[in-house]
Amino acid sequence: MTQPSERIVRQFCEAWDRRDMPSILALMSDDIIYQNVPQPPFRGRQAAAAFLAPIVSKATAIEFKLLALSVAADGSSVLTEREDLLHFGSKVVKIPLMGIFVLRNGLIAEWRDYADGASVAAEFQRAGVSLAPAQHT
Amino acid sequence: MTQPSERIVRQFCEAWDRRDMPSILALMSDDIIYQNVPQPPFRGRQAAAAFLAPIVSKATAIEFKLLALSVAADGSSVLTEREDLLHFGSKVVKIPLMGIFVLRNGLIAEWRDYADGASVAAEFQRAGVSLAPAQHT
Repeated sequence: MTQPSERIVRQFCEAWDRRDMPSILALMSDDIIYQNVPQPPFRGRQAAAAFLAPIVSKATAIEFKLLALSVAADGSSVLTEREDLLHFGSKVVKIPLMGIFVLRNGLIAEWRDYADGASVAAEFQRAGVSLAPAQHT
Repeated sequence: MTQPSERIVRQFCEAWDRRDMPSILALMSDDIIYQNVPQPPFRGRQAAAAFLAPIVSKATAIEFKLLALSVAADGSSVLTEREDLLHFGSKVVKIPLMGIFVLRNGLIAEWRDYADGASVAAEFQRAGVSLAPAQHT
């Protein structure tokens, strides 16, 4: 049986696939802590949105490909292995990564992704996409 | 109830904590594919051992700290969020990472760790530890 936490994370990934920023934000808690480890975290939905919205609006297609997903025994955390694909016209940024989602009250309260930062930066550069510098709060 | 696959991964982490190379290798399948993503994988127990044994023998203490662990619904994969600590005398290399272990016949057949490569390299350099160049086969 699919647990509620798994359903929420799958809904979140599907919202990314639709580039549906309102749905993405609606699944985050107000006080979400979002981190691309080991970068400093973004604290709060607004800070996360300020970083993520430009990516979502620039991308012409997005796919959060779930390679593996498992739910912790107490149901509070969902661990994923993914390949995130961000299309910018004919260019594709491919990010192999793992991510953990900690759920509270049906919302994502913590989201940590682990990837090789230099490779991700090189992929964005190769695709000719410049991201605004992160404003950590 | 702890699933067999979880038990194997916990045993594997404990073998690292003991710096017990024979036990580490005994929990790997002959044809293990071990990868520090996005580096190319090591194929086979011997190739993995050639990369890992020098780290284990140089370290004066090791701790694979399990921050989160979850088992995929079919029991075949174990996903972890960890902080791996490698002590070299008074210096500590801290690696925040996530890793996935795919089990077959009670052994680890695939092991992929996801971390920020540049940070890991900087941590080793700061600790004054040079690793032999990886021989990928």
